[in-house]
Amino acid sequence: MQHTITVLVENKFGVLARVSGLFARRGFNIESLAVSITDDPTVSRMTIVVGGDNTVLEQISKQLNKLIDVIKVFDYTGLPVVERELAMIKVNAEAKNRAELMQIVDIFRGKIIDISDRSFTIEVTGSLDKVNAIESLLSPYGIQEMVRTGKIAMIRGARLG
Amino acid sequence: MQHTITVLVENKFGVLARVSGLFARRGFNIESLAVSITDDPTVSRMTIVVGGDNTVLEQISKQLNKLIDVIKVFDYTGLPVVERELAMIKVNAEAKNRAELMQIVDIFRGKIIDISDRSFTIEVTGSLDKVNAIESLLSPYGIQEMVRTGKIAMIRGARLG
Repeated sequence: MQHTITVLVENKFGVLARVSGLFARRGFNIESLAVSITDDPTVSRMTIVVGGDNTVLEQISKQLNKLIDVIKVFDYTGLPVVERELAMIKVNAEAKNRAELMQIVDIFRGKIIDISDRSFTIEVTGSLDKVNAIESLLSPYGIQEMVRTGKIAMIRGARLG
Repeated sequence: MQHTITVLVENKFGVLARVSGLFARRGFNIESLAVSITDDPTVSRMTIVVGGDNTVLEQISKQLNKLIDVIKVFDYTGLPVVERELAMIKVNAEAKNRAELMQIVDIFRGKIIDISDRSFTIEVTGSLDKVNAIESLLSPYGIQEMVRTGKIAMIRGARLG
């Protein structure tokens, strides 16, 4: 089972190494990770997607909460969330395929953000499933390169409290 | 100076800890990091934004290349790239402010992806500067929560070779 966790940490060096070290020591594989600044420059926010059952997740949460520099841990399992990831996909685009490719991009509400005589670079945002779906539709044309941000997530509705 | 590096690594556990440990030991602060799968399930792709001069970057590159499980390191400094990040911003949205907020979202080609009686959640993609710009335009309304993926990057044009 996949879980999504958000970890708010002090924006200091070494924090990322401590957090990822904890996952590695426990043998948990991180499926995706996005770390960036927040509106408070002293705080970074990590969104971690990790596999494992609920017991495993509880352990991770407890261990994370013990780490210095960890401010807060949220586990979104079972909660109503909005979640998105961003992907850029560079695909073979010869003249004869362009119309077809543009249709696929339209259907997924993607954008073509770069073009060369042999390629399109497409930007698309959505759930993991949506990104997987466009990837599999594009792959017959030949994907030259793909990069994904990993998922970010937020509880639906106004902030509690 | 900010540098953007892409590191292709074997998708095994512990790799992230080794890479982030290297940055921590050398005292380099990672400003953002995005790690996700690629079209090859055995390979993960990390996009790292890090501060430092060119000498520092060369050192990092060399050290990374020595790490087991690191397949390839690219430094995009000075090269033509397309780069994007994704942000979700939850902002106070009372009825009287909604029209104004929707204008800002339109100008930045964002999307409103969740709504409650007191808030909008906005999705926006773009350069770091664009995300910073919409953040500062929204902040007078009161940002309840923000999450950013960190930057991902790709060389412009078709894949070389």
